[in-house]
Parts: sequence; C-alpha cells; structure tokens
Amino acid sequence: MEIARVAAAVDRQFDTLLQVPDDPRRELYEAMRHAAIGGGKRLRPLLVMATSRLFNVDESCAIRAATAVEALHVYSLIHDDLPCMDDDDLRRGKPTTHVAFGEATAVLAGDALHALAFGLLADERTHSDPFVRAEMTACLAKAAGPAGMAGGQMMDLVAENSTFDLPTVTRLQQLKTGALITACVEIGAILGKVTSEGRTSLRGYAHDLGLAFQIADDILDVEGDEEKAGKALHKDAKAGKETFLSLMGLERAREQAQMLVDQAKSHLNGYGGEADVLRAIAEYTIARDR
Amino acid sequence: MEIARVAAAVDRQFDTLLQVPDDPRRELYEAMRHAAIGGGKRLRPLLVMATSRLFNVDESCAIRAATAVEALHVYSLIHDDLPCMDDDDLRRGKPTTHVAFGEATAVLAGDALHALAFGLLADERTHSDPFVRAEMTACLAKAAGPAGMAGGQMMDLVAENSTFDLPTVTRLQQLKTGALITACVEIGAILGKVTSEGRTSLRGYAHDLGLAFQIADDILDVEGDEEKAGKALHKDAKAGKETFLSLMGLERAREQAQMLVDQAKSHLNGYGGEADVLRAIAEYTIARDR
Repeated sequence: MEIARVAAAVDRQFDTLLQVPDDPRRELYEAMRHAAIGGGKRLRPLLVMATSRLFNVDESCAIRAATAVEALHVYSLIHDDLPCMDDDDLRRGKPTTHVAFGEATAVLAGDALHALAFGLLADERTHSDPFVRAEMTACLAKAAGPAGMAGGQMMDLVAENSTFDLPTVTRLQQLKTGALITACVEIGAILGKVTSEGRTSLRGYAHDLGLAFQIADDILDVEGDEEKAGKALHKDAKAGKETFLSLMGLERAREQAQMLVDQAKSHLNGYGGEADVLRAIAEYTIARDR
Repeated sequence: MEIARVAAAVDRQFDTLLQVPDDPRRELYEAMRHAAIGGGKRLRPLLVMATSRLFNVDESCAIRAATAVEALHVYSLIHDDLPCMDDDDLRRGKPTTHVAFGEATAVLAGDALHALAFGLLADERTHSDPFVRAEMTACLAKAAGPAGMAGGQMMDLVAENSTFDLPTVTRLQQLKTGALITACVEIGAILGKVTSEGRTSLRGYAHDLGLAFQIADDILDVEGDEEKAGKALHKDAKAGKETFLSLMGLERAREQAQMLVDQAKSHLNGYGGEADVLRAIAEYTIARDR
C-alpha cells in the first residue's frame, strides 16, 4: 500500500468521522477537519498499515487504527502550535488551527481529536477481538501521556532555558516523537495478534527509525525549504535549543542518521519481501525534503 | 463507601500514579498533582464506586476506573479554566493550574491527564476481562469527544455571543456535564459486566441526575458562597449566557431540580438497599452548598 493511497484513505476516514453537524458545535468540527484533512506526510498511518500487512491484517480494520494514530498526532500538532507553546502560524502549508479558528476552538479541536483517537481504537468495528482493542488503547495511552508525547513536549519547553546534552536531547526526542512512532508499529502488530515478545524486533526498528527521523528533522530545520516543509523553519536555533545537529555537527548527524536507518532495516532481517514497505519508509525518512 | 473514603482513595491513586520524576518533566507532574490531588467533590468517582457496588465489583478494580473518570474531569477543568477559555484564577480553592504553572504547562498537564484516563481504563490491573476494558474505554471516549464534553464546551463558548433557548441550554449541559456523569454510571455497570440493555434504568438515573446537578450549579452560581465553592461565581450573568436559572426563574428551577431528583430515584426502583448510596447522591446533588 503506497503512501498516496494511505493518505487518501485517511482523509476519507476523517471526512466520514467528522461530518459537520448543523448545531452550535459546527466550528469545532470545522476546526478538526481543517487540522486533520489534507496534508502531512501521513508517516504514522503508513507505519500502522505497513506493519499490519506483515501479519495479513484486514486493511479496512488497519485503516481505522491508522486514522486513530493520525488523530492523536494531529491533536499534538494543534496544541504544540498554540501561542503559549511554540506559537506557530503555519502547519502543513496552511494557517495553524488557532490562527484560523481562534485559540479556544483550537484547544478544543485538539482535545476532541485526542478523545476520537481512543474511541476509534476501542470501537468494535476496528477489531472484533476486545483484547486487541484494549491492548491498542493501552499502547497509545502510554505513548501520549507523561511518559510519552506530553512528557517530551514538557522537556522541549524546558529546553529553551536549559543546555541539554546529547543523552538528554535523545531522551526528549524518544518521548516527543519516538514514542508515537513505536506505538504505530506496535499497533500494526497488535492488530495481527503478535504477542509483546514477538514485537521485539519491530520495536527495535521503530526505535532506530524514530531517532533517524528526528535527526533528519533537525537537519531540515536548518537546511530545508519553508515552502516545501509547509511550516516555519530555523526555529530551534532561534529558541536557543540544543538539537542533534547543534550537538553533533552536520556531517556526523548525517552519518548517524544513515547508520540508524541501516540498523532499523537490520531489525527486519527476519522478514522477507512483505517488509519492503517498512524498509522503504526507513530510507524515505532521511531522504525526504519535508 | 462514603464520600470521604472515596476522596481519600482517589488521592492515594493519583499520588501513586503521579510520582514526580527527577528529570526535566518534573514540572509537568507537579502541575498534574496540583490539579488532581486534594480537592473537589469527587462526585464522579463516587458514582463509579456506588454503581459498581450494585454488582459486587471488587473495590480495588473500581477505584482505578473511578480515578480514570476523575482524571478526565480534572483535565477538562484545567483546559476550561485557561485564559483563552473561561479565564479562571481559582478552582477548588486553589490557584488554577495555568496561574500556578503557566499556560503551556497547564495545557500539557491537561493533555497528560486525558491520556492517563484512557491508560487506566485499558490497563489489565483495572479489570482482567479485555471486553470490560475496551467497553469502558469506548464509553469514556464518547463522553469526552465532540459528541460529549468537547462539543458541550464548544457550545458554551458560542453561548457568549448567542441567545440559547431552553432546549439548546439543555443540550449544551447534557454534552458538557451530563455525558461524563452518564459515563460514570455506565462504567460502574460495565465493571459488573452488565449489558448495554441492562444499563437502561441506570442511564435514566444518570440523565436526570446530570440535569439536576446542572440546575443546582446554575443556582449556586447566583446564590452560592465563593469561599465554599472554591471558584469564582456569578460568571454566567457576566458572560451574558443563558442558564436554566435565567430561562426558568429561581422558583421553577428549584422545582424542576427536585422533580428530576425524584425521577432519578424512581429509575432505581428495581434495586433495593444496595442502591441507597446512589439515592443519597441524587439528594446531595441539589442540597449541596458547593
């Protein structure tokens, strides 16, 4: 399943889930649609789909779980962009949600997408086995909470007034972006009823992929094109934050990202051609221009 | 299980769940503890406990689910109090989270409690049966999302610049506070493995209780004592919002609340003395001074 098809399928899911009601909640749904539909690399849903395919999971189930992780990701982007957080005006080539709809509606749209993510995973239409639903929910909750994305974003706020060393920046990014990337791969495997021990090599893949992704992001923040990125760049330096790039230098950061991608792929050695999409995702992670 | 014992048990749960780590996430955990521990009526956890007792649910399981709904409630209070929302300085007799910790940390503390709520419900320590865990999660997600609390809060924002009639105010409150109150009762029954049809009378109880609760809240907003309430009062009139009180007048509002409490209790006629706590909660809802 290639990336364009996943992106279109996620858009269709959101379009169905977020039909605008004819009542005073209209603006909330419009803000959710603005943030969720049309845009983004859809890397996280693609990871769910590509992993679930290893275990022959029905695509109509997997796409719902994939939409759930994207809903969680979009919620985190809306809140991270708020004036009290990173204060960003542009996201995915569009005005951020608070710029388009005001702060209060943006906070609520994020909150509503957060709840929607869990509702999707717990819905019996996503998987008939309640154990699968409960395990996916637990996995996503861990990735979203204080020991995951919320904790990573807190560290990111602290980073503006601290000088973090490489292990601390690594920890920050493992929480802020790595935890959800790992959850995507785990959820793909949970859909395939793979036990926690059976997911060890996939977790290794996701761990290395997450770090490579973030190093590539740090490089793009310095070297990238704002128009292609669809968001403001050069932000870390302005905020005085240490990054993989500031701590390692460009050359070593590039080498490290390539090493991580190779290592990520080596975790897939137990799989054959069915894991080629996961291998391609790893390569894309550092080759992308946005 | 009386209210003081539930309140103490919820505090102990939060204390265990939110041990402050010795790393840059410290402030996030402190903000979560500030908002979650010590304070509030703990009405929602009490509803979970009292309902689960009808079905002889183990208390150590029920208290974890009860803590989950309180975590969700506390997250909603933190976000509703933000400057871009209701801009409140006082909650439960303490400075609101953004006043004590800043806006960014408050947004994150709310987000982290939101995720924590789902993580608790999906955790196998809360219930050994995955069907129970998945069904509780689905129930809470529905109550939290755009067709529940987030939708109700959106209507509440719109209310400042609209003139809502009684059916619209009723709908607003059913989403904003009623949905979670109903979820508490449903979750108590789900823990007892009661089917959705078997929960009909309990849903009726919760529906009437939720409306009585909100009418009492509207009356307290006008007639209450700010010190006892632990929050700013007289806010609806200042914001120009229609309420049950403004639309019905004090006398009719009082009668309506009493009628709803009687009706709520009548839904419990199929239960004996084991439902006395639920009956007492209904009486307390309109007799309280905070």
